[in-house]
Amino acid sequence: MASRVISNKQVILRRYATAGSSIQESDMLVTTTNITLEAPAEGSNTLVVKTLYLSCDPFLHFIMKNTPGLTGYTFFTPGSPIVGYGVAKVVESGHPEFKKNDLVWGLIPWQEYSLISDPQRLIKIHHTDVPLSYYTGLLGMAGKTAFAGFYEVSNKPKKGDYVFISAASGAVGQLVGQFAKLEGCYVVGSAGSQEKVDLLKNKLGFDEAFNYKEEKDLVAALKRCFPKGIDFYFEQVGGALLDAVLVNMRDHGRIVGCGMISQYNLPQPQGILNLMEVILRRLHLIGFTHRDYDHIYPKFLDFVLPHVRNHNITYVEDIAHGLDNAPAALVGLFSGRNFGKQVVKVADLHDDHDE
Amino acid sequence: MASRVISNKQVILRRYATAGSSIQESDMLVTTTNITLEAPAEGSNTLVVKTLYLSCDPFLHFIMKNTPGLTGYTFFTPGSPIVGYGVAKVVESGHPEFKKNDLVWGLIPWQEYSLISDPQRLIKIHHTDVPLSYYTGLLGMAGKTAFAGFYEVSNKPKKGDYVFISAASGAVGQLVGQFAKLEGCYVVGSAGSQEKVDLLKNKLGFDEAFNYKEEKDLVAALKRCFPKGIDFYFEQVGGALLDAVLVNMRDHGRIVGCGMISQYNLPQPQGILNLMEVILRRLHLIGFTHRDYDHIYPKFLDFVLPHVRNHNITYVEDIAHGLDNAPAALVGLFSGRNFGKQVVKVADLHDDHDE
Repeated sequence: MASRVISNKQVILRRYATAGSSIQESDMLVTTTNITLEAPAEGSNTLVVKTLYLSCDPFLHFIMKNTPGLTGYTFFTPGSPIVGYGVAKVVESGHPEFKKNDLVWGLIPWQEYSLISDPQRLIKIHHTDVPLSYYTGLLGMAGKTAFAGFYEVSNKPKKGDYVFISAASGAVGQLVGQFAKLEGCYVVGSAGSQEKVDLLKNKLGFDEAFNYKEEKDLVAALKRCFPKGIDFYFEQVGGALLDAVLVNMRDHGRIVGCGMISQYNLPQPQGILNLMEVILRRLHLIGFTHRDYDHIYPKFLDFVLPHVRNHNITYVEDIAHGLDNAPAALVGLFSGRNFGKQVVKVADLHDDHDE
Repeated sequence: MASRVISNKQVILRRYATAGSSIQESDMLVTTTNITLEAPAEGSNTLVVKTLYLSCDPFLHFIMKNTPGLTGYTFFTPGSPIVGYGVAKVVESGHPEFKKNDLVWGLIPWQEYSLISDPQRLIKIHHTDVPLSYYTGLLGMAGKTAFAGFYEVSNKPKKGDYVFISAASGAVGQLVGQFAKLEGCYVVGSAGSQEKVDLLKNKLGFDEAFNYKEEKDLVAALKRCFPKGIDFYFEQVGGALLDAVLVNMRDHGRIVGCGMISQYNLPQPQGILNLMEVILRRLHLIGFTHRDYDHIYPKFLDFVLPHVRNHNITYVEDIAHGLDNAPAALVGLFSGRNFGKQVVKVADLHDDHDE
């Protein structure tokens, strides 16, 4: 490909979103600029990539709100594209380890084409007999999160353990639940609609599920589902649900958390009242991020790919089409509009008119 | 000793204390009854013991308030004596492993003389070159708690780690601080008076200390003491101090807790607002009780006794005299009236007029 100017649609962070309230579509701007696609010089170690899929993830709100004290993330600022996880195809390479048409996943700007100056942060995709979009979720960050949280962060729950998962039909929760079923646990999930509850029970193999929006008394709902208490809670929600879980935990139970989505849009977090239960019940409450578990990714793939191929593990995706629909898809996460993993399809792998 | 009727002073739980408020001296009744001291028959496996020291411990309030859902404790009910940790002397033994004049520590009713039908729950005292009262604290439950919490519950803090201890001049805190100094940590404690702060800094070897009652902004106080953040927080207080700690923790820090004394007298616990920090900073928050660590007691004694004998470890006790003063001593714990470990001396080891 010689140097060529083409149009490049982008999703720009227009302004920092307001702390303590929902991110808004109007915090983002979909715009089209021109980009000069030029083959990177050999030795430049840069790539030009074409975005295929983007992942809508709750963590983006922290960056979009310029949350104080945040460390370890890839930041972006007003005037620049959102940067999140995605799948892309190498269009031109100036890096010896990547060649044209390689597929990669990792942190990618929300635009059709990007110049990547640090491609070592991208992971090459070697298995393409599964849907490519899975590398935004099941085989990407969400999968790594679920695997780390269930198998690595604390002692792995064992056969017969009582496992509760909040946000259970989401990108991570649906996997944690299926891992727990593979290990012989009794698994209950909470979600925000009857349709999601049906998904959990009928398609994803959960033993029980409830719609937290329809339960007047969350403590009672959990007691109904777990008369003997909860051994392992995979925490993604926080707030009142966490408080209800705390008084339903078994002695020595573990709470492993990677998010508290119910709190992200509140002016002030809800106070957690039952934390004394951590002491009385001798609980472990452990926060983690997949970013500390990059080293397990090969092990995770070895584990999960056979299950995906054998259809032992299912993955439900909610795919929005086109960058124009990306802001709404992202905003929808925080009200639970998505049904399964929220993905944005930006381009088809085989739509090669640009090359 | 033949069968003989003698007077037996007791501290009785008069009525359950009111949940959500302070225990009161009037919840207890000091009274004197008669007891028939009779040598237990051989094979009865019971003991008659004479109480020497009693330990005032915060956990007693849970039992005195008939806290719902409590498990694993030795309970007592209105009309019966308080039962807590103490030191006693065997007066008569019908158990092959105990003989007259043996010294023991463990759960003992708050009265001068007791018939103990399950002496296997008592621990024999073999080292008497240290003050006997230490077996209510330093060499008893408090010491085991401090040792378990610092060395066993999570990875032991290492040289140079930043360690914060609340209720630092109390029965457990003063030991955790000294263990942390032995390990080369930087150690800061909080306490509720200038006198206690001076104790921490001048006698117990803490690097820094502050009076939480005098600090307008606990977050700022901790930031002043820990500009680089806290690696290990030994939690005994809860509430606003815990919230302030959460935003001062370093990534991957650990919070190990055995109590939340600031919350025990409140009608409703204070909501903890900053729990999202557990996730953002990837913290471990671990509740524990010494009751799960009985097996470490011999190892703990081997560790601590040489330090006590060499005066590497100091232990500050606040000794009340006589059962008449026991209710006030216990109630005082919850307002921090005690200066160091609160003990009640009931009788002198060598005051043998009863035998």
